[in-house]
Amino acid sequence: MIWLVLAEAALETVPEALRAHPSVLADVKRKGTPPGKLLLDTNYHHSAMASLPGAEKRGRPDIVHFSLLAAMNTPLNAFFKKLRVCVHVMYPVERIIQVDPATRIPRSINRFEGIMGNLLSGKKQPTTGDDAPLFTIENMTLATFLSRFDPARIHAFSTTGKLRSFDDALPAIGNGCSEGDSDFAVIIGGFQGGHFEGQWMAKVPPENVHSIAPLPLDAWTVVARVVYMVEEAIANAARNPSCALPSNEK
Amino acid sequence: MIWLVLAEAALETVPEALRAHPSVLADVKRKGTPPGKLLLDTNYHHSAMASLPGAEKRGRPDIVHFSLLAAMNTPLNAFFKKLRVCVHVMYPVERIIQVDPATRIPRSINRFEGIMGNLLSGKKQPTTGDDAPLFTIENMTLATFLSRFDPARIHAFSTTGKLRSFDDALPAIGNGCSEGDSDFAVIIGGFQGGHFEGQWMAKVPPENVHSIAPLPLDAWTVVARVVYMVEEAIANAARNPSCALPSNEK
Repeated sequence: MIWLVLAEAALETVPEALRAHPSVLADVKRKGTPPGKLLLDTNYHHSAMASLPGAEKRGRPDIVHFSLLAAMNTPLNAFFKKLRVCVHVMYPVERIIQVDPATRIPRSINRFEGIMGNLLSGKKQPTTGDDAPLFTIENMTLATFLSRFDPARIHAFSTTGKLRSFDDALPAIGNGCSEGDSDFAVIIGGFQGGHFEGQWMAKVPPENVHSIAPLPLDAWTVVARVVYMVEEAIANAARNPSCALPSNEK
Repeated sequence: MIWLVLAEAALETVPEALRAHPSVLADVKRKGTPPGKLLLDTNYHHSAMASLPGAEKRGRPDIVHFSLLAAMNTPLNAFFKKLRVCVHVMYPVERIIQVDPATRIPRSINRFEGIMGNLLSGKKQPTTGDDAPLFTIENMTLATFLSRFDPARIHAFSTTGKLRSFDDALPAIGNGCSEGDSDFAVIIGGFQGGHFEGQWMAKVPPENVHSIAPLPLDAWTVVARVVYMVEEAIANAARNPSCALPSNEK
């Protein structure tokens, strides 16, 4: 199974300290959303965010929206059934959102923001036909989340990584998923500017930090490409099963 | 150069006949957009669209938005500089929108819809630093647009196509782009349901209609994958230049 984590994602409700700012009050009025459920958004709260630590990595719910749209309706999820998508949020505390694989991400950003506002503020969630929640959220650091993975199977994507080194990891991922018994974590930044900063980075072997392009890509493009690369690796593994390899000979 | 065409795209202003419908009037009031610039949207005008011919393929501006976001900020455009993106719209008449390669697609759907509403209704457009318009629109059928391409270099993507047959076309596309002298058209449906219907389909050799997945994909996922596949083909061609192939020996 591939656990795709959108890490340090730019998704949070407006911090308490900013809720009296005129730009936030105007947005509350315009959207009719209670301040506790309003998502921080650089488009609308730019002036309020000037004093916010790490502002360049915050307030981009659209990044999470597009990234989930790019991940969910793919063969890796819907056909191979080898994908679990998580969103790691940082504020006000570290939490992990898990997306049920049957979830149809709403195409409307307004509807998506409504669901995320409810989720992050602890309100009732939409459910699947058999009443399973489509999104679940848990107080958990990403370091803790990653501790159940074999470190060799944790991969992160960053412009600081080695260009194209993920290609070398793909055959093992394809075989591991094809045989159905291995969990891999693939970690993609869910923010616009800056780099990964969390202590969880200590869980990622340096050789497993990959760059996949000669220029910075949007998060949703990294998601789309990594999902496709893994699918191809699984398809290749299915065509050339590892049981035919010498290491598996009896 | 790769000419990526989002064909029969679900992008249009609300047709005249629907402008008095209560759902449209309510949306005009809510958004403060003049009816002539309001984009048809199944989210808001579903009841008004019941009588509209081909309604299942219309009223999804988000498909065009996400697809452009998936195409523009990619190595194929920004690094290799081998991509031109066009949107083919059908209503009220066939037109082709060309996107300047330097365009940064606005991440906000509201802002994108504002620009498209102006463009489709003939209003003033945003420009680049040197006053070139970011989007240009021209009355032209897709059949006419395609007539300047070598038919062998026109490819379309459809669930009715042959699975994975595009793989066989990629080496020639990679070589053709790498050497810089060939134009290829890649045509992707810019709508949600249904199939291509236009007379332009006669311009596409049947063997150049490809399927790239075992299930229907969203348009933006097809765009992301095709762009990536072409990039890889160009990178492969650069590593193995065709001048080293027997056919090019002196």
